[in-house]
Amino acid sequence: MQDPGEMAERLLARDRSALSRLISWAENADARYPAVLSRIYSKVGKAWRMGITGPPGAGKSTLTNVLIQELRKRSERVGVLAIDPSSPFSGGALLGDRIRMDERTADNEVFIRSMASRDSHGGLARAASDACDVMDAYGFHSIVMETVGVGQSEYDVVAAADSVVVVLCPGAGDEIQAMKSGILEVADVLVVNKSDLPGADLLIADLEDAISMRAFRRNSDASEWKVPVVSCSAAKNQGLDDLVAAIDAHAVWSRENDLDALRRKKRVAQVRRVVSERLEEELWGRMGNTTRAEELLEQSVTPYDVAEEILGSILAPPMQSAQAAAEQPKRGD
Amino acid sequence: MQDPGEMAERLLARDRSALSRLISWAENADARYPAVLSRIYSKVGKAWRMGITGPPGAGKSTLTNVLIQELRKRSERVGVLAIDPSSPFSGGALLGDRIRMDERTADNEVFIRSMASRDSHGGLARAASDACDVMDAYGFHSIVMETVGVGQSEYDVVAAADSVVVVLCPGAGDEIQAMKSGILEVADVLVVNKSDLPGADLLIADLEDAISMRAFRRNSDASEWKVPVVSCSAAKNQGLDDLVAAIDAHAVWSRENDLDALRRKKRVAQVRRVVSERLEEELWGRMGNTTRAEELLEQSVTPYDVAEEILGSILAPPMQSAQAAAEQPKRGD
Repeated sequence: MQDPGEMAERLLARDRSALSRLISWAENADARYPAVLSRIYSKVGKAWRMGITGPPGAGKSTLTNVLIQELRKRSERVGVLAIDPSSPFSGGALLGDRIRMDERTADNEVFIRSMASRDSHGGLARAASDACDVMDAYGFHSIVMETVGVGQSEYDVVAAADSVVVVLCPGAGDEIQAMKSGILEVADVLVVNKSDLPGADLLIADLEDAISMRAFRRNSDASEWKVPVVSCSAAKNQGLDDLVAAIDAHAVWSRENDLDALRRKKRVAQVRRVVSERLEEELWGRMGNTTRAEELLEQSVTPYDVAEEILGSILAPPMQSAQAAAEQPKRGD
Repeated sequence: MQDPGEMAERLLARDRSALSRLISWAENADARYPAVLSRIYSKVGKAWRMGITGPPGAGKSTLTNVLIQELRKRSERVGVLAIDPSSPFSGGALLGDRIRMDERTADNEVFIRSMASRDSHGGLARAASDACDVMDAYGFHSIVMETVGVGQSEYDVVAAADSVVVVLCPGAGDEIQAMKSGILEVADVLVVNKSDLPGADLLIADLEDAISMRAFRRNSDASEWKVPVVSCSAAKNQGLDDLVAAIDAHAVWSRENDLDALRRKKRVAQVRRVVSERLEEELWGRMGNTTRAEELLEQSVTPYDVAEEILGSILAPPMQSAQAAAEQPKRGD
């Protein structure tokens, strides 16, 4: 059995098998992981974390693949975390993309890891953030997280990135276009991929309009980041330098502005995820409370009363009284 | 301010404004809702709950609309819960569908309510299940929940239904077809909508193959429900009687087999959601713990150590020691 201290040392000495093992510890919520993190934490924070997301079919994997090549051109060490879909509806799809992306692993300064989490509710974002910390401490200059799909769990993953890149493509139908307004809220850089397809110019113009509208609505001043719209064709290797430049510009802007505050907010989100996961495990990891709930439900106790009983059994007294106080109506009607 | 006892009485007397109000209480996690549920709980369990889901563009809203008409033909009271997307990427889309569906509200025995939950993480499924309980106690014979999209939160919603209907359509592209294997796992009834489009026969054959394969893999005997594949065209009002017959057959089969056990399992899931939501609210509803987390993070304490400190402050001592015991490795490597 590996000792956390030894594993931390090996990671900081850039041992690839320690890197791989520690990401597994993070992924599996191994109880040794927190002790490792304490030992490597002072080395975390140098890498630039990018999140690549967007609707299915936009060409995210191809884009990630060529983005890695661009980053490698300037001798960066690049760590990649490919998030497989956790949706119960799409699990296991798109394996072909993963295989294509693995071409890059022949390069020793590139590390690609995929992470799937079909059963976890929220655990994926916690694990992905931990994996980024591990890669960061290892010494990657850039970390690229790529998600498949556009659900809540993918959103939680990319929200942990320093630069969120949202990839769209023309002609993907009304449904995908309807997502635009929501997508704008999370994007630091917008990419219109497959820019040689018909409708690309219209999509770019639409997106630029929407960004101006948003800036106008928010009454934002010059200090706010203006989301650029980058046009490229990943498959034809066109426009990738523009994408890298846009991400670089965002990194420079962030470092001059609110990076520390934003990263602290993202750490608070991680604290919340760790707390939730611990509570889930404590409450439902063994059968006790489930059995108790089933027994009570059989006696026609409502789910709310069962929940109250279970909460009462685990919480310290001060919080229980806070709960009693909460019995007052919360919202007017 | 309404008294929970009075509201419960009005609901059971089939007062439509009480119905509407109580669904809002459920949706907003109003502190008065649990007291109402206790008073109406003995009347819950008579309605048949259907969940309609599937990828965007499959025609779920049109199908739901004509399904309501079919159910109305046999004088059923029908309650409909239309779940709007909670994905941050697609919020607010598909309003047109909602408006089309509202045509039915002229009929006094049909009640349509939409529920959106962009910011909730898991709260949507809790609220949807509560809303079904309210509609059930009111006296609807059938409750139809329709979700937009195929993410985790939509899955959680439809998983609470007695019969899960998954709607697909031909020609929706490889990405959607790739979801098939996952979709099979949750479906009680599969619908191939737009059955007049090219490729419908192939999709039906594919789905039937996949179902047989699954039955073979599971080594299932005659007592297992065989998922039917229903072909229809909702827009042309064709094949809807087959869909209703398939849902009816599933209801009959369920009542003869594992309905009580399944419903109890779904109630346990609801208990877990209520517990999670209460803990979220207690932990993060006020700023105290967030501020504490920010302060600790500023001192370079890791998110895990911050989480430990916050957990220690709320948990009763027995659980804290259980936690200490959990410091042992959880999984081998």
